Amino acid sequence: MERILMSLQYNGAAYQGFQIQHDLKTVQRELERITQRMHQQFVRIHPASRTDKGVHALEQFIHFDSHLTLPEDKWMHAFNSALPNDIVVTRVNKVDDQFHCRYDTIGKMYRYRVYTNPLRDPLKVNLMTHMPYDLNITDMQKAARLFEGTHDFTSFCSAKTEIDRKVRTIYLSKVIETTYGFDFVIVGDGFLYNMVRIIVNFLTDIAQGFREVDDVHKVIEARDRTKAHKTAPSEGLYLERTFYSEDELKHCVAELNTL
Amino acid sequence: MERILMSLQYNGAAYQGFQIQHDLKTVQRELERITQRMHQQFVRIHPASRTDKGVHALEQFIHFDSHLTLPEDKWMHAFNSALPNDIVVTRVNKVDDQFHCRYDTIGKMYRYRVYTNPLRDPLKVNLMTHMPYDLNITDMQKAARLFEGTHDFTSFCSAKTEIDRKVRTIYLSKVIETTYGFDFVIVGDGFLYNMVRIIVNFLTDIAQGFREVDDVHKVIEARDRTKAHKTAPSEGLYLERTFYSEDELKHCVAELNTL
Repeated sequence: MERILMSLQYNGAAYQGFQIQHDLKTVQRELERITQRMHQQFVRIHPASRTDKGVHALEQFIHFDSHLTLPEDKWMHAFNSALPNDIVVTRVNKVDDQFHCRYDTIGKMYRYRVYTNPLRDPLKVNLMTHMPYDLNITDMQKAARLFEGTHDFTSFCSAKTEIDRKVRTIYLSKVIETTYGFDFVIVGDGFLYNMVRIIVNFLTDIAQGFREVDDVHKVIEARDRTKAHKTAPSEGLYLERTFYSEDELKHCVAELNTL
Repeated sequence: MERILMSLQYNGAAYQGFQIQHDLKTVQRELERITQRMHQQFVRIHPASRTDKGVHALEQFIHFDSHLTLPEDKWMHAFNSALPNDIVVTRVNKVDDQFHCRYDTIGKMYRYRVYTNPLRDPLKVNLMTHMPYDLNITDMQKAARLFEGTHDFTSFCSAKTEIDRKVRTIYLSKVIETTYGFDFVIVGDGFLYNMVRIIVNFLTDIAQGFREVDDVHKVIEARDRTKAHKTAPSEGLYLERTFYSEDELKHCVAELNTL
């Protein structure tokens, strides 16, 4: 048996998220349909992240075990020929069978893209979130930085979360102005269910004057999920990087800090 | 009665083109559903261009006649609240009842967007055409210019065209390199059915070495639609400008010439 690791990108618009859910169209279903056909039997795909409905990925990883002995480029070709246009495999590596693409991640980077034109842009539909109102970017920039560090993020995670330990370390949290509005970028050792989207909603509440910059500390300290439970829409969210190497993570944080 | 002129943008991905076709989802159907509801009776929408299935518009115009006496901003709001996210009205003007948004156009500009990465990009799906092969951009640039001038474009229009007069004047035809590949831009007094997409396919044939640059003249002169009948996919095509003013048309051509 060989363990196959794949890096993939997808447009989440047409999917009910990554994970298999009955008969719904999910990224995992598209992938397992291919492994099933190639192996003539069911082969489970394991992802690094279970992205939600509508969320995009620029660097998601999956692994699976195979008795086939194909070279890496043949794996890539087999998947890319069979996958729909909104999913693509960008790299394939054979890895040690101790490697696990979820348990071995040491960090992730997400980006949330917002455009602020007064009118919606039909060509940004499903790719960015539209916020056609006045936003105080400076306040949002100050507030974003306050998420950095090690905190209990109970207040910033969905009530549906099953895990108990809600402490995460955020290496970078930053709002970057763009030509179309702003990007929120965040790098951390891990993220709770809906955490990035709840943080984005909290930041845009601050930018609209509904909350104070200092509320970030207060709400983190409250450890109460009713304090910040609204979530920004999924369409602006991208899983942009998945890290297995400290060096790559540090390099990414350093680069984002220069922007 | 007042004649209402609207400028609109849309993402063509989800539509079977502009024009009503039985029960299919078209842009016209979405618009006429709104005029019908507002007027309690059927009100015909007239477009400047009948864009094809999958083709996008950044500046399409429509007009219709109404007995309602709404101010322009109320028309805009009424439409934008009722339209799906992939269509937007960007401007509303009341016009003289002699004005006709199709017959009064003096020119149009189309853009065709191509990306050339070896791998497909899921976030460009339906927004650009993927051509993952070697293209000789210089040859394509030379060839594109040869379409400029007044020609009989019989060879570059679909066999389905019903109109007899196939002479059109092209004010500018140009290939512009981009970070992701190239854009083909073309400005003319009018375009035949599938003409831009047939020209793009012809240019990319030249760029791949299947045809010579000089073939442009030969095929135009042949006035034979079997000589260049393949069409590039619709997803890369944008109706970018619709002109009613000589000044705006000249200004657009001058600006594109500086790029």
